[in-house]
Parts: sequence; C-alpha cells; structure tokens
Amino acid sequence: MDGSNNSEYALGLDLGGTDIKAAIVAEDGTLPKTWKIPTEADRGGKHVVDRLVGLCRTMLDELPPSIRQEQVIGIGIGSPGVFNYETGQLVAGAVNLPGLSGTPLRSVFEESVGLPARVDNDANAFALAEARWGAGEGAQTIVAYTIGTGVGGGVVIGGKVFHGAWGFAGELGHVTVEPEGEYCACGNHGCIEPYSSANGIANCARKLVEEGRESVLSELPLESITCKKVGEAAKNGDRLAISVVERAGYYLAVGIAAAVIVLNPEMVVIGGGGAQLGEMLFEPIRKGLKTRVYHNAVREVPVVGAKLGTDSGMIGAGALVFSEKRGEPRG
Amino acid sequence: MDGSNNSEYALGLDLGGTDIKAAIVAEDGTLPKTWKIPTEADRGGKHVVDRLVGLCRTMLDELPPSIRQEQVIGIGIGSPGVFNYETGQLVAGAVNLPGLSGTPLRSVFEESVGLPARVDNDANAFALAEARWGAGEGAQTIVAYTIGTGVGGGVVIGGKVFHGAWGFAGELGHVTVEPEGEYCACGNHGCIEPYSSANGIANCARKLVEEGRESVLSELPLESITCKKVGEAAKNGDRLAISVVERAGYYLAVGIAAAVIVLNPEMVVIGGGGAQLGEMLFEPIRKGLKTRVYHNAVREVPVVGAKLGTDSGMIGAGALVFSEKRGEPRG
Repeated sequence: MDGSNNSEYALGLDLGGTDIKAAIVAEDGTLPKTWKIPTEADRGGKHVVDRLVGLCRTMLDELPPSIRQEQVIGIGIGSPGVFNYETGQLVAGAVNLPGLSGTPLRSVFEESVGLPARVDNDANAFALAEARWGAGEGAQTIVAYTIGTGVGGGVVIGGKVFHGAWGFAGELGHVTVEPEGEYCACGNHGCIEPYSSANGIANCARKLVEEGRESVLSELPLESITCKKVGEAAKNGDRLAISVVERAGYYLAVGIAAAVIVLNPEMVVIGGGGAQLGEMLFEPIRKGLKTRVYHNAVREVPVVGAKLGTDSGMIGAGALVFSEKRGEPRG
Repeated sequence: MDGSNNSEYALGLDLGGTDIKAAIVAEDGTLPKTWKIPTEADRGGKHVVDRLVGLCRTMLDELPPSIRQEQVIGIGIGSPGVFNYETGQLVAGAVNLPGLSGTPLRSVFEESVGLPARVDNDANAFALAEARWGAGEGAQTIVAYTIGTGVGGGVVIGGKVFHGAWGFAGELGHVTVEPEGEYCACGNHGCIEPYSSANGIANCARKLVEEGRESVLSELPLESITCKKVGEAAKNGDRLAISVVERAGYYLAVGIAAAVIVLNPEMVVIGGGGAQLGEMLFEPIRKGLKTRVYHNAVREVPVVGAKLGTDSGMIGAGALVFSEKRGEPRG
C-alpha cells in the first residue's frame, strides 16, 4: 500500500459498555489502524456521542500516511440497541446510550464529521462482517448468533443487513424455545437467551451445583462459576458441565431451526465468547437441526464458528458503510 | 374492458390433489375467466403435467374476446411441494406429483406452451397474492400461514416470494413450538402443524372427547368431529371446544412469534379453512405475540385474516408471473 492507492476506507466504531474500539476498515476487511478509548457511559448519552464524534475526527487526523482523507467514504457505528436504520435513532434497549432515544444519530455524525454515517445494532454489524469477510465469506444469506452475556442475532439477506419493517428483524436470541420456560429479561418466558447465553450457561451450572449435584465445579465459589469454567470442566469430562453445555446447544438448535425454516440461509454462523465452547456446543446444535429442519435431509445447512474474533465489531461497523454503498442505485 | 386494452395477463394454475383450478389473472388481481378440471393424480405425474400443459393451451384458445394472446405474458403454477425456483424442479414433498422430482417443469411449460413459466409452492403463491392484492395490499414484507390439513407458510420480502438459498424458506408450519411435543409428519416433534392445523384441532378435540371430557362434541361419532364442528361448538360456548381452539392459537403464537422476530414483517396474514375460526383463533395469537415479541411493545405487528378466499391459489399463481417481471433488471 502506498500514497498512490485508490482504495476506499471506512471508519468503523464498535461502541461497548466499557470501551469504544475503532478502526480504519479497508475494502478487504483488514484494519490498517485501530484506536481504543474508554466509553465513559456513566457520564450520559450526550457525552458518549461527543466522544464518538471526537474519535472520528482524531481518526481522520491520524490516518496512516498511505491513506488520504478523501479515500474515507463513511462512518459506521455498531452499538447495542435497535436503531431506525434511516435516521440512526435509537428505537429500543441500548443500555450504553441512556437518554438518547430521540437523537437522530445519523445526521449528528454526518453534520459533525462531514461523512455519510450508518448506525446499527452491534450483532447486525457482526453478522454482516462474518458474511462479507468471515466464516460466511461470499454468502448472500446467513443468520448469525453471538453467544455472550445475552444472545445477539443478525440476519443478512442479499449481502446486506436485513432490518424488516421497523428495524427489529434478527433479534434471534428472543425466539421462544420452551413456551412456559425460564424467565427472560425481555419479559417473555422461554427465550433462547436464558438457556444458551454465557450467563445462562453459568446460571444453570450454579443452580445444579447448589442442588448438590456432583461436579468439579462444586469446588469453586458459586459466583466464580462462569461459562468459561463450565467449558473447561466439560472438556475434562465433568458430567454436570457436559450436560449444561448440551442443554445450551439443545435449545440453541430449537431456536436456530426456526430461523433456518423461515429463511433457508446458506449457513449459520456462531460467535461471541460462548462460541469458544466449540464442537461441544456445535454438535448438539447440528443434531437438533437434523430433526427440526426437515429440509436438512435434502441439503444440510452448515453451522460454523465465527472467524473474525473480537475485531468483528469494528469490521462490521465498517462493513455497514461498504454494504450501503453497494446497495445504492447507480447512475 | 374492450379489444383495445393494453393490460397484461397471466395464466394462473392452482394444482390441487383433486382439481386443477385455473384463471386468467389480470394485473389488478381480478380473474376475467376461470377453468376447473380434475387432476387425475392417480394416473401419475407425467399425466398431470400433460393435463396442465393442455389446460394452458385451452385457456389461450378460449381467451375472452377482450384479451389478445399477445397480452398473456406468462404462466404461473402453484403446487404442493418445494421447487427449485430457477428450474421448476421438484425438490421435496409434493404428494400430487409423484415421480416428477427430476423434471425441469419450467422449461417443459415454456417449450410446450411458448410462454415464460414459474412453478412455486402453493403457500408461497398464497402469500404473494395476499401481499399484492389481499390483506397485505401494498406490503413489502409479510409472513402468511394457511391453516388447512397442514399448516402452510410463505414469506414475502420486497414484494416477492422469498425462497432462501435452496428454495426451502417459509415452511412456517414446521417451526418447533414444543420441543418434546407431539409427533409431526415431517419427522420432528412439536411443530406448529400437529397442534394448529385443521387436522390437529380435530384430533385434539377427538382425544379429549375419548378421554371422557364433557362437550357437545361427545354426541358426535368421533370421526365426524372436524375443525369446523369444533369451531361451531366453540362459538356456542362449549368449553372443551374453546380450549382446543385456544390451544391452537397459543401454539400458533409461539411459532408466529419466531417468524416475526426473525423478519419483523409489516403484518401476519392467516388464511385457509382454519382461519374461519376468526377472532377465536386470532385473539390468542395476538395475546401470545404481545409477550413473545418484545418489540411488539414498541409497535405491534398486525395479525389479519386473508382476504382472497379460495381463489387465492389461482391469483397467487398469476402473481408469480407479475412479481417475476417486476423483479427483472430493466434495459
């Protein structure tokens, strides 16, 4: 790469509860340069937006020598919450942006930084990144799940994030998998999330240990039983831990089967911390899909791990910019 | 309408197990002329295709005087089963077309009749008809269910049938709603279909009557308890019948919620014979969606009855032709 390159670049910002991670995102999904600053979410939504805007300016000032400002074609921001894709207004549930539900974020960024901007849900950005440059490279239609504190989801159709009528499409962690099942923070009973999120996995193991079930996990203080510890115990053959991971996979299969039946995607991508459980989690998912998706008998929908790791938030935020550009009518 | 009209028309054929219903379909969804012949499915798949081709020729010969042959722009055929949308090849499960899975139906019709042809699943055609000219008139994104012997489904995105990667999208009756629930003919346990199809509703009532539960239905011979009879009894206040219909609605809600979460459609359309249960069925569906789709608290997704009645198969088959034309690149 040198001063004569004519590639296009995006600013990709991943807004988290603790940090804002940001990168110059190239057209091939690589990140020529990255930044990270504290979110300071406790100082309020307006402060967070000011920090995001300030960071965009810093990024443009500190571009690598090989990239000229005019090569940067837009800003993409991935954040928890549901956004109106046209205006960037927060529509529902972003704990990191308190008091921001009325702000048209898109025009705020466009006016303050002078570049086209896109704001979208972080799981949608993750799904887009994986479809474009990750596990689904080249796929037009995928469903993607992030197994973390909660279970996030995103739907990509025709190589773009699918938002549905009002921006709510793809909240896949809230598909009901046990109609009278465990309470979910969304108010429903039996969503995927309380069963199969990293928190759900840890909670389930804690409960069974409390009930006196035999496990190496019972040697730990209850509060230090995490999804990761459950995974390690399962890898070492601990039967309680194995059953907890299998249960998470069982319910993921029920919910993923619904999305697969609705959409017949080319593949299912699973990422986030919980995906570190790997085949232990993926096998019960594949097994469940075999019976619950009858067309799997004709042609099996692959279930694969995400490829882009913890950078996927920034990469996906940049992908929002390129995807938008690609989707616009030409001429 | 007179000889000087320049509108376009499609031949719309609805292939059923007993009859082939066919119509000239106008651009506004009206049917200037209809035909009906027996399917004669027992004489084999090739015979059925010959009858379909023959009927297309008859239709072109018997056009109303106001319509010229060159105004007919294509043939649409709706049939049970899953089809490869590009070739019209049967991919899975059409009881009416035994032994036809290798035939590229699209080119058979195009070569035999000399018009562009589209073959699609009948529930997809129903969904498209309702989105274009029925309950969802003008909607870009809907999910639609037909409550009949089974539970059929169709997904319309951007005003066109959405097929997914390999044609299997939208088989909505086979979403799991009770993970270890009743056996479904597809091989899975706990699909919507065994709970909420007309057959499922009748079976449930029969079982409860057999168990000795009090109901006016217990005065009937078991085999004459149908979904329709259950609906009549429920309307007259029969508690067993009411509980059976509510159960069907409860499970429909679980499954519809999944599709709504995945897609955030503009509306949900419900048709087929079972939709005659009306508000008795729709109310428990709406109630379930309120808790199971958390974004319903922000903006409720309407659940409405289909509008086009028993003609929707023919209308939808014609819509396949117009929808395809609209989606093609111009110039």
